[in-house]
Amino acid sequence: MTQLAPLDFRSDTVTRPDQDMRLAMSGAEVADDVLEHDPTMRALEERTADLLGVEAALWVPSGSMGNLIALTVHLRPGDRFLAARGAHVLDNELGTAAWISGGMPHPLEWDAPGRFTADAVRAAAGADGPYYTLRTTLLCLENTHNAAGGAVTPPDEHALLVSVARETGLKVHLDGARLWNAAVALGVPPAALTVGVDTVQVCLSKGLGAPVGSVVAGSSGFVAEARRVRKMLGGGVRQGGVLAAAGLVGLDRIDDLAADHANARTLANGLRDLGWQVDEPATNIVLAGVPDLEVTLTGLRHLGVYAGPMAGKVRFVTHRDVNAADVAEALKRIQSVSS
Amino acid sequence: MTQLAPLDFRSDTVTRPDQDMRLAMSGAEVADDVLEHDPTMRALEERTADLLGVEAALWVPSGSMGNLIALTVHLRPGDRFLAARGAHVLDNELGTAAWISGGMPHPLEWDAPGRFTADAVRAAAGADGPYYTLRTTLLCLENTHNAAGGAVTPPDEHALLVSVARETGLKVHLDGARLWNAAVALGVPPAALTVGVDTVQVCLSKGLGAPVGSVVAGSSGFVAEARRVRKMLGGGVRQGGVLAAAGLVGLDRIDDLAADHANARTLANGLRDLGWQVDEPATNIVLAGVPDLEVTLTGLRHLGVYAGPMAGKVRFVTHRDVNAADVAEALKRIQSVSS
Amino acid sequence: MTQLAPLDFRSDTVTRPDQDMRLAMSGAEVADDVLEHDPTMRALEERTADLLGVEAALWVPSGSMGNLIALTVHLRPGDRFLAARGAHVLDNELGTAAWISGGMPHPLEWDAPGRFTADAVRAAAGADGPYYTLRTTLLCLENTHNAAGGAVTPPDEHALLVSVARETGLKVHLDGARLWNAAVALGVPPAALTVGVDTVQVCLSKGLGAPVGSVVAGSSGFVAEARRVRKMLGGGVRQGGVLAAAGLVGLDRIDDLAADHANARTLANGLRDLGWQVDEPATNIVLAGVPDLEVTLTGLRHLGVYAGPMAGKVRFVTHRDVNAADVAEALKRIQSVSS
Amino acid sequence: MTQLAPLDFRSDTVTRPDQDMRLAMSGAEVADDVLEHDPTMRALEERTADLLGVEAALWVPSGSMGNLIALTVHLRPGDRFLAARGAHVLDNELGTAAWISGGMPHPLEWDAPGRFTADAVRAAAGADGPYYTLRTTLLCLENTHNAAGGAVTPPDEHALLVSVARETGLKVHLDGARLWNAAVALGVPPAALTVGVDTVQVCLSKGLGAPVGSVVAGSSGFVAEARRVRKMLGGGVRQGGVLAAAGLVGLDRIDDLAADHANARTLANGLRDLGWQVDEPATNIVLAGVPDLEVTLTGLRHLGVYAGPMAGKVRFVTHRDVNAADVAEALKRIQSVSS
Repeated sequence: MTQLAPLDFRSDTVTRPDQDMRLAMSGAEVADDVLEHDPTMRALEERTADLLGVEAALWVPSGSMGNLIALTVHLRPGDRFLAARGAHVLDNELGTAAWISGGMPHPLEWDAPGRFTADAVRAAAGADGPYYTLRTTLLCLENTHNAAGGAVTPPDEHALLVSVARETGLKVHLDGARLWNAAVALGVPPAALTVGVDTVQVCLSKGLGAPVGSVVAGSSGFVAEARRVRKMLGGGVRQGGVLAAAGLVGLDRIDDLAADHANARTLANGLRDLGWQVDEPATNIVLAGVPDLEVTLTGLRHLGVYAGPMAGKVRFVTHRDVNAADVAEALKRIQSVSS
Repeated sequence: MTQLAPLDFRSDTVTRPDQDMRLAMSGAEVADDVLEHDPTMRALEERTADLLGVEAALWVPSGSMGNLIALTVHLRPGDRFLAARGAHVLDNELGTAAWISGGMPHPLEWDAPGRFTADAVRAAAGADGPYYTLRTTLLCLENTHNAAGGAVTPPDEHALLVSVARETGLKVHLDGARLWNAAVALGVPPAALTVGVDTVQVCLSKGLGAPVGSVVAGSSGFVAEARRVRKMLGGGVRQGGVLAAAGLVGLDRIDDLAADHANARTLANGLRDLGWQVDEPATNIVLAGVPDLEVTLTGLRHLGVYAGPMAGKVRFVTHRDVNAADVAEALKRIQSVSS
Repeated sequence: MTQLAPLDFRSDTVTRPDQDMRLAMSGAEVADDVLEHDPTMRALEERTADLLGVEAALWVPSGSMGNLIALTVHLRPGDRFLAARGAHVLDNELGTAAWISGGMPHPLEWDAPGRFTADAVRAAAGADGPYYTLRTTLLCLENTHNAAGGAVTPPDEHALLVSVARETGLKVHLDGARLWNAAVALGVPPAALTVGVDTVQVCLSKGLGAPVGSVVAGSSGFVAEARRVRKMLGGGVRQGGVLAAAGLVGLDRIDDLAADHANARTLANGLRDLGWQVDEPATNIVLAGVPDLEVTLTGLRHLGVYAGPMAGKVRFVTHRDVNAADVAEALKRIQSVSS
Repeated sequence: MTQLAPLDFRSDTVTRPDQDMRLAMSGAEVADDVLEHDPTMRALEERTADLLGVEAALWVPSGSMGNLIALTVHLRPGDRFLAARGAHVLDNELGTAAWISGGMPHPLEWDAPGRFTADAVRAAAGADGPYYTLRTTLLCLENTHNAAGGAVTPPDEHALLVSVARETGLKVHLDGARLWNAAVALGVPPAALTVGVDTVQVCLSKGLGAPVGSVVAGSSGFVAEARRVRKMLGGGVRQGGVLAAAGLVGLDRIDDLAADHANARTLANGLRDLGWQVDEPATNIVLAGVPDLEVTLTGLRHLGVYAGPMAGKVRFVTHRDVNAADVAEALKRIQSVSS
């Protein structure tokens, strides 16, 4: 039996740096970023801050650390933060928002996939008790929203949520691990989706293809404090320029994400044609409901098609290391066993 | 204008020790409970353990500390615990379950008031991801459930939840601050409502009328560790027998709670007759929906009738310091302004 | 063999409330101190604040909780605090200064027993590194110093330490669990020993004889925040007036501590006459060096003389439940086996 | 005035990856190390475990994270750990051993520079109190010891400390950020210096010259738990093989550290000849006492000679980016202003 070439739709985190990116890394100018400021990291941080329309930015080894740093700077014991049910900060960071940042999470129910209403924020923000009540102090947004299949929050809805947060005295952190995808899907600059936030985290190692790294950004004051918390958590690296160089290449490739989105739509349509129950993908994530998740994932694996579980469904993620031909091939293999 | 005598329905925590209780306190045999074991505290702890059908028990200054100790012993960083939306450990303990115990809360939606289904537990308990997923390790029950208006979980439903917890590898902590009320309302012994739990917390300072104190209980091993955590939190007291003596008197008065429940029903019926929207009280808590919570609470206060807010409704709590005549008088005052 | 009446020198925490104190407790006016302010607790808190020369005060169940609250309010992650080697906050509070308050302790070596120099504070306070250095932010004093045998810091030395702390930007917390002893030994009012501190904790349950309770005090702003942290830790009690009443009686008895100090000197002299190696007691604690601590403690126990270990020595503590005759009797028993 | 070429002795962390190392990085085989195991990271981890004589190893972004992970796995609230005064885990990791790992540090005084006696461990490990005493559970070693000027602990002394730790029930973590230097200085394999430890951390980004990364190692069970804690802290990276490749090159260069040690001795001797007060360097760190630290550091900077402060002295660190000629040049410049 011939071994089928693997088609990896598990996550956009599986992207490998290509030759151009590796070349940039190997030629990067570097310095000790703990003692001074590595020049390539500085360049990456400045460019990212510009793209996001904020004052300053800080490279971090992972999106989880970016979120953790932001929450640690924002929250004090006795504080409560709001986030959509299923948010990455709630379900995928091993509880560090609670354990390390010390905040009490309060999940908001979905109105639309991954989204909640401004009224829900207003209701949850209002304190209704005496001095010993939790202080609701922070709203966490996630755009695109992973557990909701890459759902996009458009600029007007974002602006409304931020304005309710302001009214009710909440700070706003935006988990923008896939913010680039949201911007491309909407055809707006990334900064249109960060309006009014206090802090935002974006990933370089997902759709953009850098091997390692995210950026957390906000005011200069925030970044100064974040730099200290990064050191605490062990995320202060030395000659990080070799990684930042990959990130800079990644930032040149934001527009390429449109291809991933097209591939996701093709995949969704193809699966639907085969009778699958598929949500319409907003960006690069395709969620498909199946009768038995484990059986389906195993069956796909036997076809060399790798997907993962997400909230009880099969999750396919498109990315720069699977092209249109790969999507067609995956559909062909699935069809071969579907008749 | 004559000042109206205050009728205090804010909480059963407002009960004051009566003369018999004070007499017991002033005559209590005591010793240094940190260095050795205060004899009256020991008596209270043993009697409570017996009542709850568990091995051992530990006096604590408050129900919040009892819950906090249990969660601290049960949880490790990276652990997730389940509790009903609105549970006291989620909303009324200032986030210490997260900050101090280090656990990530996962609220379960209500199926009936304050209750969730066994299936919801099973779904939430199941890990669906790799090594870096939160480990769901603890189920928190609350009987009666405060935010749900003193809702009672009957023994069979309790047993079912505990059995699902066992199946799915969860420990069970029962916040029984008002477990006595549940037992009296159901006409079962308290131990019928603790079957299979790992730990349980009960209050002495609510319906039972003791001025200070709760008890957290479980296995001997748990209590040994709990004693240590109590010391950490600053809850190790010296000649605590003066307080334990009040608790022992309180335990003699469990059956008196039936009167509080009857008074709650009378109050609910009376309010309903006046056109109020009132939930049927299961125990000693009456929740009434009103158009404007602040206006109603202020109006009541002007009548010398003190109530409080709970989840957007007016909460009246009956207790041993308001008798049937007080309820009648409260209804009379409210009627006087309702025509 | 006749059982010898026990003479308990283990700690001044073993004192039992006498009839006057119990009478005050049983007659105390009370209210729910979480919902409003218990009148007797308020009276105790105001009187203690006056005695200490600070703005406001808060009753807490234990001295450990008082210290823990103060440190939690003062410290942030990344902060370092200074305290004398062997301080109660370092060695006797189960590490909660680190675990809960989040501070990094930096023990200062002793210059005299339990004391360190102003220069040591200055040297330790000075940051010598870049942004990622620990911020030294708090100086913890302890007067009298328990592990140093009840050593007293006089007002001028206290003032010097506080002034260096101010110069170097440190806050000051005073663990005054036995501050009353220091004041009596020096013949100064307690407020003379709190000059310039941000916060101070004093115990009611040691020499003053109350069964339960301490007070933590400082500015009104601090007390508002402390009240919230007390609720977090589970130290918010309801009708605490029954305990506060005992504390108020205790505050009337500060001057009685002089008798304890005289008894300590008598005990020290007597032991020395029997050939023991005894430090000169400054207050109510007598430390005696012995060849084998366990052997000596066991031998004493056989004589009905109860003492404890402290830093490798035998610790005898005098208090209101052992009088001059008890000290004489203890010496007699020890002499009987020393010849 | 001609600008002098900078000679950077601030730290061995300033080393930049050379061409060979960059080439290895750009050619590294990679995979998503969170979802599966990056092959180059696996190779690095296995080789490091072999070198250290332990079962398994885990790449981490920094030495601080390696130590933090080890302490987090080892410590529970209420635990106390021992470390030499001035240890990196005490003074240079922003208090995370306390705040995050939850342990209470207990600094041991130096007997020789950076070292303490087995008796000091035995004395500190012994519990002398009741159930509420801190449990001393962990001994932290540091070899070489940074704050002591790169002091080396030889194998026999290491073995003695480990054996006392075993006797007294302590686990042992070795901060081996510069363990390679110790091994080279002693002429023993690294595994000779890890005998009996539970965990060890070694750096790739100091003398070995890799741009980023450390390794924490121990039993397979430890590494499984460490992997989870690394994810918590945000240290789980994706295609980390690009960094691991640099680490593998670094491991080939351990023997090169002998040149750094020779350069350190030359520098020390040269400074001594110029009348400086210099400690004899054991490895690659030269500490020099000077009358005014700030004046000296500024003066050196004007000469293009960069050094740093360490415990009140000037610290020069030799490394692969300063060669013998650079040392000679530095001495020449210093001499030019010393006459």
